Parts: sequence; structure tokens; C-alpha cells
Amino acid sequence: MESSRSSAAAAKMSGSEKPLPVDLSHHFNFVTRRRLPSKIKAYYKLFGIPGIRNLAGGLPNAQFFPFDTLEAQAAKPDRWTPSPNGPGQRLAQTSSEPPSQAANHIAVPKASAEADLSKKIDLSTALQYGQSQGYPALLSWVRQFTRENLHPDVPYRGGPEVAMTCGSTDGFAKTLQIFVEPWNEDIHPISERPGLLCETFIYGSILTQSLPLGMHVAPVKADAGGMVVKGPGGLEDVLANWDDSKGKRPHLMYTVTQGHNPTGVVLSIERKREIYAVCSKYDVIIVEDEPYWYLQFPSAATEEAKSRGLPAPPAVTPPHKTQASSGYEFLDSLTPSFVSIDVDGRVVRLDTFSKTIAPGCRLGWITAQPEVIERYVRISETSTQQPSGFVQSLVAELVMGPQPEATKSAFARALASGSANKFTGWHMDGWIRWLEGLRGSYERRMARMCRILDSDSSLLLSSSSPSSEWSVITKTKLIDFSWPRGGMFIWLRVRLETHPLYGISAPETEGESLALAMTMFLTTKPYLVLVSGGSMFSATEEIRRDRGWSYFRLCFAAESEENIEASAQRFVEGVKDFWKIRSVREIKKLLGMLPKADGVDEEDAEVFGAGCVQLGGWLGC
Amino acid sequence: MESSRSSAAAAKMSGSEKPLPVDLSHHFNFVTRRRLPSKIKAYYKLFGIPGIRNLAGGLPNAQFFPFDTLEAQAAKPDRWTPSPNGPGQRLAQTSSEPPSQAANHIAVPKASAEADLSKKIDLSTALQYGQSQGYPALLSWVRQFTRENLHPDVPYRGGPEVAMTCGSTDGFAKTLQIFVEPWNEDIHPISERPGLLCETFIYGSILTQSLPLGMHVAPVKADAGGMVVKGPGGLEDVLANWDDSKGKRPHLMYTVTQGHNPTGVVLSIERKREIYAVCSKYDVIIVEDEPYWYLQFPSAATEEAKSRGLPAPPAVTPPHKTQASSGYEFLDSLTPSFVSIDVDGRVVRLDTFSKTIAPGCRLGWITAQPEVIERYVRISETSTQQPSGFVQSLVAELVMGPQPEATKSAFARALASGSANKFTGWHMDGWIRWLEGLRGSYERRMARMCRILDSDSSLLLSSSSPSSEWSVITKTKLIDFSWPRGGMFIWLRVRLETHPLYGISAPETEGESLALAMTMFLTTKPYLVLVSGGSMFSATEEIRRDRGWSYFRLCFAAESEENIEASAQRFVEGVKDFWKIRSVREIKKLLGMLPKADGVDEEDAEVFGAGCVQLGGWLGC
Repeated sequence: MESSRSSAAAAKMSGSEKPLPVDLSHHFNFVTRRRLPSKIKAYYKLFGIPGIRNLAGGLPNAQFFPFDTLEAQAAKPDRWTPSPNGPGQRLAQTSSEPPSQAANHIAVPKASAEADLSKKIDLSTALQYGQSQGYPALLSWVRQFTRENLHPDVPYRGGPEVAMTCGSTDGFAKTLQIFVEPWNEDIHPISERPGLLCETFIYGSILTQSLPLGMHVAPVKADAGGMVVKGPGGLEDVLANWDDSKGKRPHLMYTVTQGHNPTGVVLSIERKREIYAVCSKYDVIIVEDEPYWYLQFPSAATEEAKSRGLPAPPAVTPPHKTQASSGYEFLDSLTPSFVSIDVDGRVVRLDTFSKTIAPGCRLGWITAQPEVIERYVRISETSTQQPSGFVQSLVAELVMGPQPEATKSAFARALASGSANKFTGWHMDGWIRWLEGLRGSYERRMARMCRILDSDSSLLLSSSSPSSEWSVITKTKLIDFSWPRGGMFIWLRVRLETHPLYGISAPETEGESLALAMTMFLTTKPYLVLVSGGSMFSATEEIRRDRGWSYFRLCFAAESEENIEASAQRFVEGVKDFWKIRSVREIKKLLGMLPKADGVDEEDAEVFGAGCVQLGGWLGC
Repeated sequence: MESSRSSAAAAKMSGSEKPLPVDLSHHFNFVTRRRLPSKIKAYYKLFGIPGIRNLAGGLPNAQFFPFDTLEAQAAKPDRWTPSPNGPGQRLAQTSSEPPSQAANHIAVPKASAEADLSKKIDLSTALQYGQSQGYPALLSWVRQFTRENLHPDVPYRGGPEVAMTCGSTDGFAKTLQIFVEPWNEDIHPISERPGLLCETFIYGSILTQSLPLGMHVAPVKADAGGMVVKGPGGLEDVLANWDDSKGKRPHLMYTVTQGHNPTGVVLSIERKREIYAVCSKYDVIIVEDEPYWYLQFPSAATEEAKSRGLPAPPAVTPPHKTQASSGYEFLDSLTPSFVSIDVDGRVVRLDTFSKTIAPGCRLGWITAQPEVIERYVRISETSTQQPSGFVQSLVAELVMGPQPEATKSAFARALASGSANKFTGWHMDGWIRWLEGLRGSYERRMARMCRILDSDSSLLLSSSSPSSEWSVITKTKLIDFSWPRGGMFIWLRVRLETHPLYGISAPETEGESLALAMTMFLTTKPYLVLVSGGSMFSATEEIRRDRGWSYFRLCFAAESEENIEASAQRFVEGVKDFWKIRSVREIKKLLGMLPKADGVDEEDAEVFGAGCVQLGGWLGC
């Protein structure tokens, strides 16, 4: 069945009735244009001459590698419990889940006799110099997954190509290297200043990457459904009424469509179609960054209504059900990618193993039309060369399984070590099952945390009015939020304007200062909880000053299983108690606790969002 | 003893009598200047609050990583036999060596209880988002190795800092990102065109990286001792008499000082001092790329003389013996780095694990003054983030050994699998021993191949003169070369001007065409040997046309142990037989066999040298 599906997909992919992707080369910057197509490939024919002795390549013989095998204990794909695919179905009420610790032993051998490079997984190839597009075995697997399962019906002729990256930060850095002409205000006219379209709130690291190139940021209004197309501040308005004094009208858009960081929004296929039409009209390249692709939460709307005592929303079958099947119910249930409607070939999609395997992999892939992928590969050849063979071979071994030659010794080893389970690889079924299990675990974490944030007793503050002789009870709602429809984050607005000290003349009582003071207050005993402020995710300083400060991002992915409820409870108690502060002096004291930025070296932009770096440090965040 | 040495080294390093490194920030390009110092580090204090719950970071909990361990079978450090350190000592005549296959089982556990990050090696940290400067455990080890063993006495105050790279191609790409303002001939004046100083022959990938940025290449004359300083074409001449019409006087030099690629030269410390003085005078940054650092061959001069029946050269004790000791006789015997004489802090050194562990690691490090390292780390944060945790943790585990917590389970595993050797890590002694063994193996390979190339019978061609009635025997020397003093390559000049067809009017008989025809001839039966042409390593087209074509690079590192002699023999027979070709038609036929460059994607620049890519494809090489 799988092979008939793939041949059907292949026929569809190459269908000559489809249009060719448009030429994007006018968007390439001058360095990218100057990178000559590689002619080295021709030489490979010479390496392939039977019996040829290689005195040409400057590389060590594999006998000199000190690693004779790479091995691992790896989870079985069913370690985590999936959640239902359909909207309207209730989420099981598991509060914490003891995972199955069952594991397989996997091993990459020193040398495999497999002749087909797209199947060969061994250290003699994986730890040698290799191909910048990717380790052939893993690349072929990723290519198949991308073209046949993730995006089974791409509208341009031949379909997309893929190339491995060292993770999506690397992927986006290379995207900027291709499409952005760095702009120096001392030399270049304002009319050439490159721009970046994005939502009002954005993953901060994108700004840290873009701003040093002299880019201007053009934020587009977003609502609960994501980027808005029509009306004031919407995409059409921003582009049609472009203000040339800000720079060149942007030709690059950055977006996260599935579980947006930080807002948790899932962009519907209808909204995508509208956005795509405008991008096509204004010749904008769409960079779709999807680390949370598999974390779409179909139960969120239903559980949110239930938690808030509201009527259940109608369970609509998503209209995208009509598209070609991926072969997997789980993948079919996810909102399709911009890639699936990319008639022009103007979408560059970034995928990563950071959230599905581990961030430390530094491994992901780019999906785009072949001419764009070719430019990525040229850049990789002259910088990263290829992702580490250690991670490429171990991930390939995990998802593809051992080759016949390797099985024997791996099995022999397993027998000897007493864990004699003959590992044959996760394969595509196991990979999808792993993703389903992850989605289930994160969806339950999300629901567990949201239910606590929803509980009346915690978020409505009862207080007696001090001005009244009689004890009058007023109820103040302290936070507003929607349950996230995907991703790893709860995005909420704290109604600091209802704080008793808000705006009572001292600068410490302005909204932004109160927000920072609350962040610090939350880190004190007994709350001891660290959250991210919305300033870090504000696309511009204007957005930050205007309202960015009133938002907070809570991640339900990082904490340990047993701490989920308690952490949310600590947050709620902390917010409530912050409202009990009645002295400006106490606010001042909290602001005095802000860490002083002094150092320069270690950092993980992901850990805390990095927008603040460009927007002026901690107090500026 | 080791600890007293390190504290002495530390005292020396920070010695306040030393000058501070000079400020290099005027060399930073505008994007680099615009990257703000990170203020994120301050936030880490908040993560460290005891009992704090982390809802801030956007990262998955380690429980969701499917890898429960990473493991490997790894060589013991004494797998290969060292060669003597002293010059003048004879090399053992081993023709091939069966390596000891003894191995240890190593394991990186999921979680270690070690509190000191500079010692902690586990998957919970290694597979998580991390520090761009490097995985703390590996970074601390590399830092110690670099500051205390490789360069124990650096002349500027505080000594150098280090940062991990994804290999040296990544390191050089980031060097260009820091120090080179890309130059577009359509916009920028010629006076701003950035330049690169290098030797006449250069690793081609450096050109592929540099030329798209609009750089001009300024080749400096080199002799058997490396880059020449005085006289016409020497470094002083090039800089003092700089021709402004070529661009800006270069402020960047690229060089390989130990086993130069492709020439095999080792640059003496005297020559380094002369070069450094000129670079200091003209404010030139020296990028020292040292993949072959440990492959210096002290026996080369003696063995060469012996092989050629010449008197043995005097065994001089290198004058650098007076510098501070690394603590290891092997390291002390190597010519010191530019770093060791870097009074100004203008040296950027690239190290890599590609030739000491495996190219597929994509792992190396940069050594430079702290302010320069800080800029590297900023770039890494916004691109590669960090080298893969898979390779960083496995290499750390190999060289540092398991932590107490891990030892137990690794040992338990080893016991169960029947290979109960308690692995405690290579440590510094083992690492140095491994390097000594590699040097020994490569030195013997080099000598085995050179002896065959030296043998009279093969390189002096006997031919009878057809013009004489009597059979007159003339002897023609076909190749010129020195035994390489280091590295992985034999660099030889083929005296194609003595070929009977050389320059007899047809274009196919010009030197460059003959060289290409010979390359193809060598790939045919019965020779079946592939070599690299010197055109690929010519710094400029002028050098290529003038004499680059007459050189060939033979690598003795890639072939299997048993093929070394036979490959060299095949080369010799092929060259001799090429002289027997008397028909231009046959040369034409060989040129017709040249692979046609048609494709664009896969490539490994290292495999074949990539200068040719920029210099115009196969025929252009």
C-alpha cells in the first residue's frame, strides 16, 4: 500500500500539468548570486571508477577514527500516550504519566557492506567528509517524509527539495544570507533598507539575527487566528500603503503557523490562503518556521469551554480534509503547511528535530523549491559543511533501523548484554507514533496548566474596599488568555492596569515597571517561579511600550512532569499576592533585584527569548 | 606535578607584566560591530535560584528525548605506534601495521548528579539547548589543553580564549563574517575591496569561501621553508609596495604552518617571527589554520637524504626548545604556533578534530584574544548555536572519562556485556598518546610512499632516441619533490616540459592540457589512480596558468594501509607510460574523458580541493 501511495505521489509531484516554481533569483543578494554552482559533482564519477585508488582526497582513512561503533539506548516509539486526533473529543484526565521505560539498543557499525548510499549507515561514511545536503541515508528518509507524508501534494511541478541544517537557527541564518542584502545606514540609501514582515509578537531570536543586518521590522496585526490580512494594520494594508521612509517594501515574511511562539495560535488553512495570495501579489517570500508542527491541540477549544463553564464549540471537520492523504490519520488531522498551497514556490519551510528528538541534536531541514535549496547547499559547503555525522547517523539508525550487515553484530551485542530485542528501526510508522505520543503528552500538560489558570478562586481577586466603612467585596479579573491551540506556550495578559498602584504618578508604577516588578516578585519565596515577559517578544519598541509589557509567556514543556500543577499554582498565587502590595517602596525594592547585565559570553537565545537583547537589555525588555 | 605546572602557567598567563592585546575592533565589519553584547547571561542568575520553577525557557523537558544513553566502542589511546620525536632519528621500517583492536565501551548517561558544569557529561545537558561557546565540560577541557599544553606561554596579558566551532570551515566562515566587509563592484569603490594574503598555493576551499565576498587574493612568494618575507614577491614587498588599483591593502592573512596544504611545508619559528613582525607593522590579522598540527615529521629530512643516497643532514635541536614546556615531550618537539609569539593578540587560530578524531565530527575550536572570541560567540548564537551535543558529549566522554555516577552504570553494562574493563577516560596523557600514534602512522605512510617515488628505476625514464641509427639511451627525470615535513600530502612537480609532445603547436600539447590528460591517463587501467592537479591549489589564475598546472598533490592519508605502496607504484608507472604517448590524437582522447560539469548539488570541498570551482570548472582547473 505504501509503495502504491508513493508512486501515486511521485506521479502527482512531477505532473506536467503543474506550473513550474517562479524564479526567485532577483531576491538573492550579491554574495549569493556570486556563488558559482559547484562543478565538483562531476569529479565524483572518477571516484566511482572500479578499483580506483584515491590519492586525491585530503581525508583520513576510516581506520584512524577512534570510534569503532556508536550506540545508544533509545525509546520505543510508543513510550508516550497519544491524544485523540479529532476536534471535540475530550482529553483523558491523566494528571501525570509514568512513561514506559522500555528501550532498544541501537548501534551504528564501523563499516556496512550496503552498496546503496541511500540505505548505508556506518561510521566509515558518517564520520567522513560528506555531502552538504545531508547524510545520504538520513537525507533520503527526510526527503521521503517531507514529500510523501508532510506535504503529499505540492502545487508546483516536481515538488520541493530538502537539505539538512544544523537546526532552524542555522536554517534562518542561511535564509538571511541568501535573501538579505546587509544594509549600512552610513553608505546605503534608505530605499534599499531590507525589511521583515512578522506578527506583532515574535520569537525574539529572529530579531537578534535580523537587526544587525540593518533590517527594519514591519509588524502585521494579529488576532486570535494569527496574522490578519484585511483592514488597518493587516498584511494588505502594510504592503499596499508601504511607507518608503522606513525602507524598502519587505519581500521577506517570518511566521510560525502551528503553535505560534509566543502566542500559541494555529493559523488556519483559510487564513493561509489569504496571506499567500497577498504575498504572491507583492512578491513576498514566506519563511515558515515550524518547530512545534506536531503539537496541535484539537481538544483545546472543547476543554477550554468546559473549564470555563461555556457551551461546547461546534466540532467542525477542518476543510483541509479534502487534500491528498499523508497516509497517516495523525498527519492528516494537522492544518496543512504553506508548502501545500505554494503555487509559486515562494515558501521556505524550516523543520527541526529540536522538539521531536532533542535541541542538542542541532539538526533540522529546509524545504523549498530546488533552486533555493541549491543556494542553501552552496552556503553550507562553505560554512557548516554538514551537520555532525554523530547525530546524523544515530538519528538515521533510530528511524531507519540497522542494515542487514549491522543487525547481526548489534543483535549479537544485545544478546551478550542481556537485552536481546532485535531492533529493526522505528520506520515511518514508528516515527509518526512517536510524534503522536509527544503531542499527547504536551496536550495534557497544557490542559493541566490551563485548568489551574482558569479556576475562579485563583484568578478573581477578592478584596475589601479600604475606603468603605462597610466591607464591600469587589472581584477583579487579573489575567486574560486563550488555551493555546498548539505549541509549548500559554500566552496571557496580566491586567496590571487594575493594580492598586497602577499609574499613581511615580515612574515605578507605570505598567512596564509593574510588569518587571511582578516578574521579580514571582521569583521570590514562596512562589519561586520564573516566567518570560512579553517585552521580549514585541516585534518593535513601539509594541513593547504600548502593550507588550502586559503579556507573559508560560512554557509548559520544560518543567518536570510532577511540577506542572504546582508551578501554575505558584504563578497564580504570586499574581494574586502581587495585588496586595500597596507600597511604591516595595515595587522599587523589587526593581532593584533585577539582574544587572554585565557579561558577554554564554547564552542560549532560546532559553529566554532574545528580543530583549536588541531592544536594550533587561530593563528595556 | 600537573597541578603545580598549571598554577605556574596560570600565573604566567595573567602576569601583569605582559602587554594587553591590541584593540582589533577597527577591523570588524559593520554587521559585526552592530551585534550587541548579549545581556542574557544576567538572566542565568534567576535560573539558579534554589527551588525555582522554570516556565520561562522554551525547551522540552529531557524526559522527552528518545535517547536514554549514548554509547560507543572507542579505541584505547595506544592503538597506533608512535615515531621518534627527535630529528635525525631513523624511522622504523614497518611496511604496514596491524592495529591493536582493543577498545573500551564508553557511555554518556541520561542524567549525572555532578553539580560542577565543567565536569558534568550527561544527555540532560548535552542534548538540551546550551552555550554557544561550547559544551561546558568539553570547553573546559579544550581550554585547558590550549592554554596549558598547546600554547603554554602566550605573550599577551591573560592569554587567549577559546570557542568551539562546527569544524574549521565553519571557523573560517565566521572569521570572514567578522573581519570582511563584503564588496560589491557595482556599488563600492575599489579602494574598499578587501584582500586576503596567502601563499602561492592554497587550500582551494578558502578561495571558494572568500571570492564570493568580492575579496581579492594577494599571493605571497613561498619557498621550501614556506612564506617568504624579504625580496621581490615576499610579504614585505607585497605590503610595502601595495598596488591600490587591486583594492585595499589586505589586513587578513590565511596560512597553514604545520604540514601546509598542499605543499607539506613546516614553517619554522624563525620564519614565523619575521612574518609576524611584518604583520604587526602593517596591522595584518593572521589566521592560522592547523588541521595537521600533530603531523610534523622529524625523520623526513634524514629519511629523504638516505633514500636519495645523500649525506645525512645535521640534526639540529630546534631553537624553540627554550620556550615554556607543554608538559609533554611530543608537544614540545613541534614547532610552536604563531599564538606563542602573538604579542599583539592578532592571531586567530583554527583547530579541528577532523584529522585527530574524524571529519564527520564537524567539531573544532578557535583560539584568539578574548574580544575576538566574544564576536565569534555572538555569531554562533545567531547561526549554528552550538556544535551538536551528540559529538560534544561523546568526545568529552572519550577524553575526560565518566563521572563517578556514570561509571557505575557504564561498568555494570560493561560487566553484563562481558567486556568488563572499567573505562576511566583517555585524559590528557591518553589524548597526547593518541596524537603521537597518529603521527607515527602517517609518518610511516609518508615515508613508504616517498621511497617509491624516489626509486631511480621508476622516476628516470630510459628511452632510445628514434632519430639515431644507434640506440642512444637518454635518462629523463620526470618529477621533482621534497619529502613533506608534515601533513597528509606529497606535493610534486611533474616535468611535463620534457614530454615528447610538449608544446608542438597543437593546443592539446600545451602544459595545462598535458597535465589534465595525464590526470585522466592515470585513472585508466592498469594505473587506476586518482590525484589532484595543482591548478586546484593555485591562489590566482595567473599562478595556475604560469606553473600551477605542473604540480600534483598526492595524499597518503585516505587509502587503506595495504594499498599505500601499490598506489604510489601505480602513479609512477602511469607517469612513465604517459611519456610513451606520441600521438596528439591520444591526448585529445584523454581530454575527452574529462567529466562534464553538469550538476550542482552534492559536494565535499575537502575531497578534491575546491579552488577549481571558482577558477572555472574542470578545464579551468
